[in-house]
Amino acid sequence: MKRLALILTAAFIGFSANAQQALWGGPQVESPVINEDGTVTFRLQAPKAVKVEVTGDFLPTQKLTFEMNGNKMEYDAPGVAELKEGPNGVWEYTTPFVVAPEMYTYTFRVNGFTTIDPNNVFVNRDIASLTSVLLVPVAGERSDLYAIHKVPHGSVAKVWYHSDKAGFDRRLTVYTPAGYETSKAKYPVLYVLHGIGGDEDAWVTQGRATQILDNLIARGEAKPMIVVFTNGNISQEAAPLENADGYTRPTMALPQTMEGSFETAFPEIVKFIDSHYRSIAKKQSRAICGLSMGGFHTLYNTLNYPDLFNYSGMFSAAIGVNDTSVSPIYQDFDKKLATYFSKKPALLWIGCGKTDFLIQANRDFMKKLDEKGYPYTFMETEGGHIWRNWRVYLSEFVPLIFK
Amino acid sequence: MKRLALILTAAFIGFSANAQQALWGGPQVESPVINEDGTVTFRLQAPKAVKVEVTGDFLPTQKLTFEMNGNKMEYDAPGVAELKEGPNGVWEYTTPFVVAPEMYTYTFRVNGFTTIDPNNVFVNRDIASLTSVLLVPVAGERSDLYAIHKVPHGSVAKVWYHSDKAGFDRRLTVYTPAGYETSKAKYPVLYVLHGIGGDEDAWVTQGRATQILDNLIARGEAKPMIVVFTNGNISQEAAPLENADGYTRPTMALPQTMEGSFETAFPEIVKFIDSHYRSIAKKQSRAICGLSMGGFHTLYNTLNYPDLFNYSGMFSAAIGVNDTSVSPIYQDFDKKLATYFSKKPALLWIGCGKTDFLIQANRDFMKKLDEKGYPYTFMETEGGHIWRNWRVYLSEFVPLIFK
Repeated sequence: MKRLALILTAAFIGFSANAQQALWGGPQVESPVINEDGTVTFRLQAPKAVKVEVTGDFLPTQKLTFEMNGNKMEYDAPGVAELKEGPNGVWEYTTPFVVAPEMYTYTFRVNGFTTIDPNNVFVNRDIASLTSVLLVPVAGERSDLYAIHKVPHGSVAKVWYHSDKAGFDRRLTVYTPAGYETSKAKYPVLYVLHGIGGDEDAWVTQGRATQILDNLIARGEAKPMIVVFTNGNISQEAAPLENADGYTRPTMALPQTMEGSFETAFPEIVKFIDSHYRSIAKKQSRAICGLSMGGFHTLYNTLNYPDLFNYSGMFSAAIGVNDTSVSPIYQDFDKKLATYFSKKPALLWIGCGKTDFLIQANRDFMKKLDEKGYPYTFMETEGGHIWRNWRVYLSEFVPLIFK
Repeated sequence: MKRLALILTAAFIGFSANAQQALWGGPQVESPVINEDGTVTFRLQAPKAVKVEVTGDFLPTQKLTFEMNGNKMEYDAPGVAELKEGPNGVWEYTTPFVVAPEMYTYTFRVNGFTTIDPNNVFVNRDIASLTSVLLVPVAGERSDLYAIHKVPHGSVAKVWYHSDKAGFDRRLTVYTPAGYETSKAKYPVLYVLHGIGGDEDAWVTQGRATQILDNLIARGEAKPMIVVFTNGNISQEAAPLENADGYTRPTMALPQTMEGSFETAFPEIVKFIDSHYRSIAKKQSRAICGLSMGGFHTLYNTLNYPDLFNYSGMFSAAIGVNDTSVSPIYQDFDKKLATYFSKKPALLWIGCGKTDFLIQANRDFMKKLDEKGYPYTFMETEGGHIWRNWRVYLSEFVPLIFK
């Protein structure tokens, strides 16, 4: 056994120079480490560096200004902290504060060169960039919902449906709850939509949606349900690495995301799910929610198909800023709103952060609802347009549906 | 629409400093780029660096020596090339040769600090380390099998089964071929096993197994089949990031991988699949294969359950190096071999590279088979103990089964 371990070990080294460093060579660099006192230590081996920094949303934010096409906008940027050099070229920083339970992302800057933490394989992709992940779960805290527990786990599948509208097959992520495969039961369906630049992977990586579902269902706080994560860009087959065109660098020039085609084609997805899964194909058992652009898509899917969804959740929704001329989907807003509420939907749920740049648009929308006496539920949180809030909104919304 | 794009854009910047650099800030760094002449250019923005190198298996290998516990072993390490600094602190290297169609992995070294290519979101995890991926697909070449094409795609699911042997739920990756959900048909099942340190993710990331399956089935070169990717470490619930214990740093001290428990418990997995999927639950419609440690597991699953598998594939199998005293699974080898062949299995397929450190062990095994007149198929390739060969072996093995 020892000899075998040795030669297999040697094979790894031959295969990966990184593995050598990570497993045997050089000092053992562990990063990040959640310390017993609740602080977190970050380490990086960079023997010839002059300056090493860590930046991430576990640090207090700083105000920065962004300029584009002559417009200046202030925004909250993640804070930055400097690491200090220790023995063997290992740089280190320990937070002077207890890091609150939450899921954070961070990157290192080595002499101005930005990259992930090479000692942490927990990495998320956000559009075109990678960030390292720090998950601080604490029992009893909300972030405990984001951790994996020894509870029954649902299945998470990447599946393809044919889109007549797009003219090709497109990819979905589908969660089926624990017990689905052997049960004869039918299940309600929740559709969950991502923001601009995201794709069918975003909610299950950055959003921790399948962990939230597993845990809420195991606690008895949510009904077992099928959950469908769509790709909101109808011109895309799938997430960047899963396209037939190979990897194409994502840009902000996103075609076909907010000109009506996604909402026009949405019934194709509902039809696919109802014909391929044991779903309850009725309005009472269908819900939809989404973040930012996905909140916008949620609103217009809800209004244009008033017989499809009984529960709708708008998370930091990008409302009130669209060009209504591009599609009939966005026209006759007040009339569609009246029709929707006349059918007495079970829930319209709105969540937004106090410092979100979309808070005013959401307040304007709610003012309109108030004037008409249309019922809705609103949750206002601290913070802005960030995943931290969207995970909260999902875990608040899911227990309210299919009751 | 413009105003919306602007404010959503600003939100991203607030969320991720990387996104800023990647999408607007600084010079547009594209890396890697496959040039029209077949060379590949790597770029990195590192304004204050003194030395920037790229290392990966697209470069000619170099011989290095590894010492552990007093034993010296020579191995093939990936080559290293230096990038040259250009304007704006962007370093660049273009291969002086055409990069052959293949899937490669690489990392950068900036002043001795090793990390991935921050401009390439295509990243693979191998045990405890991350590497950037360069896929060079060329129509008509084998690596074309590793690319995603506009063909019907199977579903790829992460599912959990209960292991009585382990005492907890464990994770599998399950591929169901295109059409499975709506077909009433039953399908044959192939079990695919990873190497030491791998997990249920390895074959679908580094192995490109689901792309290989989609493409071979679409070409009519393989039968539609269910494919199950197991986790060969019975003490693990799942891949490191998917455990209830949270992320624990992988080490080479792998418990319960080659002491018989995985093979002892293997029928649990077969039973789960046959009760949860429309599988053909017969020896004629069952195959198993694996790489390195997984080739070893394949051999002992095949020999200990001579009525389970009709097709077995051993890829760079770690045979002849085990301690037979640790489990009855590894005892009575010759007798089990005789019983297995007396039942006339359809295929025992062996693949190994000429410079693999396990080639002699495989030759010794085949010598034994020859002496007894037991039939097998052998494919010898160039190269050693590497994923490049395992992708080749899988794409050779799959067309031969269930005929």
